[in-house]
Amino acid sequence: MMVRNKVKTNDIHIINLAKLVSGPNAILYKEEDLLAYDCDGFTIERHLPRAVVFPKNTEEVSEIVKYCAANNLPFLARGAGTGLSGGAIPLNNEVIISLVRMKRLLEVDLENRRAVVEPGFVNLKLTNSISDKGYYYAPDPSSQYACTIGGNVAENAGGAHCLKYGVTTNHILGLEVVLPNGEIIEIGGNGIPDTPGYDLLGLLTGSEGTLGIVTKITVRILKNPEAKQTVLAYFDKIEDGSQAVSDIISSGIVPAALEMMDKTAIEGVEAAAFPVGHPKDIEAVLLIEVDGIAAGIDGQIELILDVCRKYNVREVKAARDEAERGRWWANRKTGFGAMGAISPDYLVQDGVIPRSRLPEVLTRINKISEESGLRIANIFHAGDGNLHPLVLFDSRIPGETEKAIQAGSACLKVCADVGGSITGEHGVGIEKKEEMRFVFKDEEIKAQTDIRDVFNPDYLLNAGKLFPTPGRCAEVKREMASKR
Amino acid sequence: MMVRNKVKTNDIHIINLAKLVSGPNAILYKEEDLLAYDCDGFTIERHLPRAVVFPKNTEEVSEIVKYCAANNLPFLARGAGTGLSGGAIPLNNEVIISLVRMKRLLEVDLENRRAVVEPGFVNLKLTNSISDKGYYYAPDPSSQYACTIGGNVAENAGGAHCLKYGVTTNHILGLEVVLPNGEIIEIGGNGIPDTPGYDLLGLLTGSEGTLGIVTKITVRILKNPEAKQTVLAYFDKIEDGSQAVSDIISSGIVPAALEMMDKTAIEGVEAAAFPVGHPKDIEAVLLIEVDGIAAGIDGQIELILDVCRKYNVREVKAARDEAERGRWWANRKTGFGAMGAISPDYLVQDGVIPRSRLPEVLTRINKISEESGLRIANIFHAGDGNLHPLVLFDSRIPGETEKAIQAGSACLKVCADVGGSITGEHGVGIEKKEEMRFVFKDEEIKAQTDIRDVFNPDYLLNAGKLFPTPGRCAEVKREMASKR
Repeated sequence: MMVRNKVKTNDIHIINLAKLVSGPNAILYKEEDLLAYDCDGFTIERHLPRAVVFPKNTEEVSEIVKYCAANNLPFLARGAGTGLSGGAIPLNNEVIISLVRMKRLLEVDLENRRAVVEPGFVNLKLTNSISDKGYYYAPDPSSQYACTIGGNVAENAGGAHCLKYGVTTNHILGLEVVLPNGEIIEIGGNGIPDTPGYDLLGLLTGSEGTLGIVTKITVRILKNPEAKQTVLAYFDKIEDGSQAVSDIISSGIVPAALEMMDKTAIEGVEAAAFPVGHPKDIEAVLLIEVDGIAAGIDGQIELILDVCRKYNVREVKAARDEAERGRWWANRKTGFGAMGAISPDYLVQDGVIPRSRLPEVLTRINKISEESGLRIANIFHAGDGNLHPLVLFDSRIPGETEKAIQAGSACLKVCADVGGSITGEHGVGIEKKEEMRFVFKDEEIKAQTDIRDVFNPDYLLNAGKLFPTPGRCAEVKREMASKR
Repeated sequence: MMVRNKVKTNDIHIINLAKLVSGPNAILYKEEDLLAYDCDGFTIERHLPRAVVFPKNTEEVSEIVKYCAANNLPFLARGAGTGLSGGAIPLNNEVIISLVRMKRLLEVDLENRRAVVEPGFVNLKLTNSISDKGYYYAPDPSSQYACTIGGNVAENAGGAHCLKYGVTTNHILGLEVVLPNGEIIEIGGNGIPDTPGYDLLGLLTGSEGTLGIVTKITVRILKNPEAKQTVLAYFDKIEDGSQAVSDIISSGIVPAALEMMDKTAIEGVEAAAFPVGHPKDIEAVLLIEVDGIAAGIDGQIELILDVCRKYNVREVKAARDEAERGRWWANRKTGFGAMGAISPDYLVQDGVIPRSRLPEVLTRINKISEESGLRIANIFHAGDGNLHPLVLFDSRIPGETEKAIQAGSACLKVCADVGGSITGEHGVGIEKKEEMRFVFKDEEIKAQTDIRDVFNPDYLLNAGKLFPTPGRCAEVKREMASKR
C-alpha cells in the first residue's frame, strides 16, 4: 500500500511539473532516461533524480521552483553537467531543472563591452559570436566547448587565462536569479566598478547552486589583444621549471597564461588524442602565453626566455602560427581526459598554494604518490599556484578507489597546510565537503550556512553540497528541526 | 531621578569601557572631545557619540564589542573619518571604536605579492613602504594621504587608477573580522583566485561597517609598471571630450587612469592650492595616464593622441617629468576641496553610468543645474563612467542646502535612469539611503537586510545606514519587534 501510494504521489508530481514546461520532451521521468543525470563530471558518486525538466524561460523556472517549494520536493539546477566536484548530482532524488534550453545570446553591447546570455549558453560560443568584431569572453575553463556560462557562474569557473584576466566572478556584471521561493530578482547589471549595498553578485557567483538559480547573465567582454605570443619551455628538472615560474611572475610580467605539466602528465597527453611531440624524458614543460600591445610582446618574451635559460631550460620554442598555438592548447586543455590513455581511472584534484611554495608542495605530492602506490600526474595553472594533481587508479582493483580518494584529500591537506586552499576553480560540491574543515573553523562554516539559510531556508535547493553538514536533505532537516 | 540614573548608568559604561582599552587617553567621553566625532567627510548631518575608544589590538576590539552587545549599547567602527557618505556618523549615540591606533604594517611578502596591515594603516603609507623595492598598492582614493585601509575596505574605495586596476575589493586577499557578537573570524588570506564556500571576502568588503569590524587585512601588492606616461588634453567642447573618452576605451587601450574635469571644476582647481595653468576658456580637460611595459607605451600614447585630434582637441601635452606629473595629479586629487575656493559650500555626488551615455547625462546634469539655480561642477573618473557632480551652494542662504541635496539626488536619478547606479566608490551611508530605491526593488533590499540580520541580529552595529529602513537603532528595533 505504502509503495503504491508513493508511486501515485510521484506520478501526480510528474503530471503537474509537465504542465509547467512548454515544448516537446520537456520532462524526463523514466529510469532509463534519468540514468544520464545520475552524476556530472565527478563520477564517483551516483544518484537518480526524481525527474528532469527543461524550462524555456525564467517564468517557467520560477513556476517549477514554486511547485517544488509548495510540495516540499528537493530540486537543483544543472547546466552541461561538466562540473568536477559533483555540484549537480541529485543526492536527494531532486527534480533537476536543466537549463540547456535557455541557451540564447540575448544582447551584445560592444560600446559598453557587455553581453547578456541565458544560463545554458555554451561558454565558447560567446567568444565565437563576437570574435569577428574583435572581442572575446575571457574565462576559459578547459571544458569551454561544452560547459555553460550558468554553470561557470555557479562554480566561479577559472581557466588557463585567469592568471591575467581573473576568474568568472571578475567578468560577471549582472544576474537575474530565481530564489528558492520562486521570486525573481535582478542584481548588478550596470557594469560598474562598485555596487551599492552588499555584493550579492559576488555572493551568488561561486555559490554552487545553493542560493538561487541564475536565469540571465550579463558578462563583461574584452577587446582582443593586439598581439599574442605562445612559447613552450622544456626542463630536465622539475625544480628548475618551478623556479622559472616563480621568477617570471616576480619579474613583473603578467603572462596571459603560465601552465605546467610534469612527466607523468606529458606521458598521458602524448598518448592521447592531441600529441604535439613533447620530449618524454623531461620532468616539466611550461606553456607560456603573453598578450597585449604588439610593441610590448617581444620584450616580454625576451625576459621570459632569459629566466628560462637561467634555470637550465633544455629547449624553448615559440608557436610559428595560430594553428600550432591551437594544437598546443588542445594538447593542454584535453589533459585531464588524456589520463584515460595511461590509466583506467583518474581522480582530478584542485588545490591552490602560494606560488613560492611550489617546489616544496610538488615534493610532498610525490611522497603521497609513493606512499599510496598510485601515480600522480600534475597539470596545472602554475602562474597562479592552482594545482591539479591527477591521481591515477584502477577502480576494478578492490580498495583502490578509496586509496585514490585518500591520496587526493592528502594533496589538498598539503595545499591547506602551506597557507593555500582546497579549490581553485572546480568548487567543493560533494567531493570536498569534509576538506572544508582544512580551511574553515566551525564558526566560519556557520557564518556561511547561516547565509545559505537566509536564501534557502527550507533547504530544498541543492541540499548536502558545499559544507560539511549531513548529506541528505531529510537528515539536514531533522538536524535543523532538533535545534529549534 | 530618571536623568540622574541615566547619567550614572552612562558613567558606569564609560568606566567599564575604559578598563577594556590599554595605553594613555584610550577613551574620550567629554562633550568637548566628542565634538570632533560628530560627523565624517559627509558634514550635513551631525550626531554625538556616547564615547570614543581606541583599542590597540583585535582582542581589545573583541572585548569592547562583547561589552556593547551584553549591555545593548549601539557601536560602530571608524577609521580616519574621511568617508563621504556618512558611514561613520553615530546616528544612535554609538560607542565609536576608533581604529587609528591599530596602524601597523604587519608583514610584507614580496614573493607572493601580499602585505598584511592593521585597519588604521594609512593607504598611501603602504605604497611608500614598498616603493623602494619596486612595488605599490593600487587603490588610490583621492584622500589616500589620510584615509585608512580599514575604511577603504568598509567602503570598497576606488580611485583614479581603478579603471585599469579595479577597486579595493579586487585587491583584498584576506580579512580578520570581529563579528557583532565579539567572535573573531578569518576569511580568505591565501591570495587565491577562487575561494571555497561563499565569497565572504566580497560580502564584507564594501558592507560599510554593518556586518563586522575588520581588524587585519591582507592586500595584494603590485610590481611598479616599467614605464608610465601622462598627458593632458584640452577640448573647447565638452561633447568632443566625452566622445574622445568613449573612443579611447573602445580602441582597446585600457589607460591606467582617464579623468575629466569640466569648465566649472577647472575654475575651482585653478583658484585653489595646486593650479597648473589649465586654460580657463575650455569646456573639458582630460588627464590620461598609460602604464606598462616600456616598449608599448609610445604606441598607446600615439593612438590616444589620434583620437583626441579626431575630436578637435585644442592642445595636448605630455608630462615632462615625475614632478610635473605629480603636480597634475595633486591638482586633480584635491579637486573636491578646491571647490571651496569658488563656493562657500559644496556637495559631492557619486553616480555611475554606462560610458556611452556620458554626453547625454552631462546635458541632463546641466539642466538640473539650470533648474535649481545652483552651479554644478563635474570632476570624474570618465574611463569607468564614475561621475562626481559637485553641487555648489551657500548654506547661509535659507533653503539652499535642501536645494543642493535635491539637485544631488536628481543627478543620481539620472544615473539610475540610464542604467547606471547611485554610487561608484563613496558608498551609501546615510546620504544615499533613500536613493537605494532608484536601483533596488523591495525584495532586493530585503535580501540584503536579511543578510545583515544574520551577522548583526540585534542591529547594534552601525544601525540606520546603507538601506532605506528607519534611521535609528531604537526605531528599527521597534519595527523588528512589531513584525515578530
